[in-house]
Amino acid sequence: MVKRYLSLISFDEALHLLKSSFNNPGKTETIPVTRALGRVIANPVYARYAVPEVNLAAMDGIAVKSRDTFGATDQCPVTLDNFARVNTGNILPPQFDAVIMIEDTWEAGDRFQIRKAAAQWQHVRPAGDDIREGRLVLPKGHVIRAFDIGALATYGIADVEVTSVRVGIIPTGSELVPLGTRPQPGQVVESNTIMAQVLLESMGAVCERLPIIRDDPALIQDALREAAENNDLVIISAGSSAGTRDFTAGSISAIGELIFHGVAVKPGKPMMLGKIKDSPVIGLPGYPLAAQTVLREFAVPLLEHWGLAPFPKYVVRAQLATPLASDLGFDEFVPVSVGRIKEKYWGISRSRGAVVQMSTVRSNGYTHIPGLVEGYDAEQELDVFLTTDPANIERTLLFSGAIDPVLEELGNLAHNQGLFIHTASAGNTSAILSLKRNSCHAAPMSLPPFSTLQESRILMPYLKSMDLIFVNIATQKQGIVSVKEIKTDTINSICWVNSRKDTPARHLFDTFLLSHQIEPSRIRGYDNEAATPGAVAAAVLAGQADAGICSQGLAEKHGLMFTPVTAEQYELVMRREMLDDPRIVTLISLVKSPAFKMDLDRNGFYNTSLTGRIRSLSCENIEIPPTPD
Amino acid sequence: MVKRYLSLISFDEALHLLKSSFNNPGKTETIPVTRALGRVIANPVYARYAVPEVNLAAMDGIAVKSRDTFGATDQCPVTLDNFARVNTGNILPPQFDAVIMIEDTWEAGDRFQIRKAAAQWQHVRPAGDDIREGRLVLPKGHVIRAFDIGALATYGIADVEVTSVRVGIIPTGSELVPLGTRPQPGQVVESNTIMAQVLLESMGAVCERLPIIRDDPALIQDALREAAENNDLVIISAGSSAGTRDFTAGSISAIGELIFHGVAVKPGKPMMLGKIKDSPVIGLPGYPLAAQTVLREFAVPLLEHWGLAPFPKYVVRAQLATPLASDLGFDEFVPVSVGRIKEKYWGISRSRGAVVQMSTVRSNGYTHIPGLVEGYDAEQELDVFLTTDPANIERTLLFSGAIDPVLEELGNLAHNQGLFIHTASAGNTSAILSLKRNSCHAAPMSLPPFSTLQESRILMPYLKSMDLIFVNIATQKQGIVSVKEIKTDTINSICWVNSRKDTPARHLFDTFLLSHQIEPSRIRGYDNEAATPGAVAAAVLAGQADAGICSQGLAEKHGLMFTPVTAEQYELVMRREMLDDPRIVTLISLVKSPAFKMDLDRNGFYNTSLTGRIRSLSCENIEIPPTPD
Repeated sequence: MVKRYLSLISFDEALHLLKSSFNNPGKTETIPVTRALGRVIANPVYARYAVPEVNLAAMDGIAVKSRDTFGATDQCPVTLDNFARVNTGNILPPQFDAVIMIEDTWEAGDRFQIRKAAAQWQHVRPAGDDIREGRLVLPKGHVIRAFDIGALATYGIADVEVTSVRVGIIPTGSELVPLGTRPQPGQVVESNTIMAQVLLESMGAVCERLPIIRDDPALIQDALREAAENNDLVIISAGSSAGTRDFTAGSISAIGELIFHGVAVKPGKPMMLGKIKDSPVIGLPGYPLAAQTVLREFAVPLLEHWGLAPFPKYVVRAQLATPLASDLGFDEFVPVSVGRIKEKYWGISRSRGAVVQMSTVRSNGYTHIPGLVEGYDAEQELDVFLTTDPANIERTLLFSGAIDPVLEELGNLAHNQGLFIHTASAGNTSAILSLKRNSCHAAPMSLPPFSTLQESRILMPYLKSMDLIFVNIATQKQGIVSVKEIKTDTINSICWVNSRKDTPARHLFDTFLLSHQIEPSRIRGYDNEAATPGAVAAAVLAGQADAGICSQGLAEKHGLMFTPVTAEQYELVMRREMLDDPRIVTLISLVKSPAFKMDLDRNGFYNTSLTGRIRSLSCENIEIPPTPD
Repeated sequence: MVKRYLSLISFDEALHLLKSSFNNPGKTETIPVTRALGRVIANPVYARYAVPEVNLAAMDGIAVKSRDTFGATDQCPVTLDNFARVNTGNILPPQFDAVIMIEDTWEAGDRFQIRKAAAQWQHVRPAGDDIREGRLVLPKGHVIRAFDIGALATYGIADVEVTSVRVGIIPTGSELVPLGTRPQPGQVVESNTIMAQVLLESMGAVCERLPIIRDDPALIQDALREAAENNDLVIISAGSSAGTRDFTAGSISAIGELIFHGVAVKPGKPMMLGKIKDSPVIGLPGYPLAAQTVLREFAVPLLEHWGLAPFPKYVVRAQLATPLASDLGFDEFVPVSVGRIKEKYWGISRSRGAVVQMSTVRSNGYTHIPGLVEGYDAEQELDVFLTTDPANIERTLLFSGAIDPVLEELGNLAHNQGLFIHTASAGNTSAILSLKRNSCHAAPMSLPPFSTLQESRILMPYLKSMDLIFVNIATQKQGIVSVKEIKTDTINSICWVNSRKDTPARHLFDTFLLSHQIEPSRIRGYDNEAATPGAVAAAVLAGQADAGICSQGLAEKHGLMFTPVTAEQYELVMRREMLDDPRIVTLISLVKSPAFKMDLDRNGFYNTSLTGRIRSLSCENIEIPPTPD
């Protein structure tokens, strides 16, 4: 058996080794305050002079001697001979000790009349009022904010000494092409080091990204040696598995020390840590989500440990809308989308495939499942670390149900209204369960026509237990998707891809087989379940199956042949109380909008005659309140 | 009476006018993804090709025909002739339909032996697995994150079209000097437009900051005209009050329209809004905190409204540690420091002086008091908008009591340990009240020696009601601060500045007067109360009083003459249960550290013989647990 990793060490141990095996390089640089946003003060900053340095007028008005004003009243105004017109911020001439606001004066020729005595030092801004000479402005370790820069400028501090870390980033892999080059099949655009550079530069690191190094141990060693020479931290991307062209571990060992290779972290297992010329070398796994995890959970904490600005962590406690399994012994990091339903926050977990970058793109947070946890049940409360502005959550709508490409169009329209639709694929029963649990805003479901639905002995008992409304999105044909035409006599000789139990497509397939009097056990691939309707089409497109059941929309999206079997209603099912939520009212108004119908019509395979119709189960027609602003 | 503002309009109305009086310029720019962090997608981004484009090996191993592997078991291994060695990410040769992991193979000469059959398509990454051609990557309005940039690069998207706003920023004021020039008395470093530029650029705006324009209507009009021509938004700083050299409003009116001048917002009242060549012109007040408020509450929302990334708002619900008054009819924005004590978040409000930039620098958040609220009582719960990383709150220690410069040294040491000390000045009674309410971590108090304290009929009844511990910081002399020597026979002829009721300095002054048999009513300035011990010294330094009572430390800091009257213990008083909080243990270990004693000794006016001693009221000596890591 070929050995894959030297050993797997735990997340905590890996982090400890990373932080403890190297000295803090402790470097600083002096930069103009105008470029210092987000940087960290390396040495306390003290005021060089008082601000203000002398007493100033704190109001527009006249500077006076307070004793000249004594006795002035409405009945007995005093006209002043000895005064100076001052504006806010002017030096208070030394002979005066008070300022009277211009609103409290009456012009009397060249002079001013007042009707109220001035207290000594009134409306005078004393020297040192903002800061006194030598006083601390910013302590060491302070992360500089925009308004701190205003204060520094006011105090005459034009440059600041801030913490500084140099990072050398090496992309490796003969299959890589640089961004801007169209990859050929089998080639990949080099993106992990771009991500590393953008992420670490946002913390204030100075990053140098080398050109792509091909899979050649000598070249990799040269690059490592040079990067370690010039930088405080080296990040080398890919070549970290145990393939025939994975030279990273060997290259580190050849010119330095390999501290570990393999961590019990998912995604991120092939991570490695080395030491070359006293500099740490972090080996990023090649899979993008694994690279992200290693960057965020290892590289970022190291730079924080060395004094760069902490990467902001905004946590929200959310309940899981669906169970979340995890490998015991592995610390797992899972993309999550969080939304609020009434007073509760709910999270839906996303694909953990280490290559599916879209699952990070489509989520607004992630959760960390510790190594000793085997997973969570639905409704478990956990911490979600946000990857977007927290206000984003308030604009997030969670959908759980059958995902059709039409939701993408709706999502675009919703986005224009500031709403983000996050979708989790679920069969009809789980979708209904989500509605019952109130863990989704709406469940998109592919349902038979309303008259048939009302007779469904499977769905109706569930549906009837809630006060639900059905917003019709479109009518669309469901049928067989294939590359070549499927003839009736080949049904049980070709290879099928099936859909998950409890999905509309699965029901349709069973009904279809029944109508052709074919036993499911005689169908090749009947047990081969694709995770989503989209995956059915993708499996057929990839040649993994000859045919499957999905919507006409998906078939067309994949450019596949489509043989219609039935028409179904694609409905957005939700609790009636959702109509009290202005976000839902906005959403429904989008479904009813001419723009959405036009989008559907343009696609050509949706029937929009019922689009926007809202009904309860008892066929009551429902009106929505006027759209909020 | 000279009129100051045309009228004051409400915060909400001002914001509405700002957002509704101008068309969204709707501009976009196309930039490299590597510079797109935090920018906002202007048009939906779709994948130009599928990723991956063909089926790939998902593991390092061998590509096989699954049917060749059927029947392989431990007892009956199969040796394969027809295979290809593949690494993760390699193209799956079209003749194969499965990958066997290298760990599950045994080398057999040139061939491989397996002991388990391979399922069709196992360890194969199908084409389109991450994204399919033409699918949505990022919707319009999406704020680009570091990991989104990774995905964009992977999908071959090198440039993105993002929303774009140009802002022209004009500093005005003859008293201004540019950053880098040492201001003469009466001059001020121009900082508000630097702040504006840094803040708005951090949102992705393209800012052009003009050179300083002196107070000359013709020059100001030229600058306004040119800025409005070249930009979507013009910000003009200062000249917005009613002084003799405030030309901004007039200049806007002369070449455009003045929409309003004066808003019921504190700080920020003199704000104005104009329109020149269809571009909005925001007039910033000159006072820095007023300028900050107008930038944050008006300029930022306008740019968000126009499609730049929302400025993140992180809110924490905190209870007020002290009451907070507010002017009815004014929306007020008050700097606040928030810390956690046990499970509760507490906020202490800071100086609202519109010129005291240090109050923003020293706070970690701010609160918004709506116009119709007259203020809040202590313990009121309210929203605090954070200006730092939320994790910062966990590292914040709230002190309420007598503020001595020595806390600045302690603060620097604490900062090195990742702790932030936020202080609120309070007299002894309010400090004890804070301890009772548990709204501060510790109360620094200037107390008589322990033996005297135990006989104090004023403090002891309060102190005895809690289980308190006293951490000695230093022994220091209290006495008279003055510019010239104070002779006993001049005590009742000179002008004094007094301290607030219930402060140690006030008690000391009363005791001092009693010992000289002088009636307080005969003392000039007895009713003139400075807000803090530092303000006493500042008042003397500014010539506003001849003498006052404060510590030797403060007197020396201000370079003033000091006549000792007594020695007091400066103690950090806290609940005994605070010892369970590792932050407090760290803090105490700092007080006990040689570094801190050295700092005190270097100052020369602290006696450190008792520094670090911890006692309860019953004189029990207390040991602290070992310092946490």
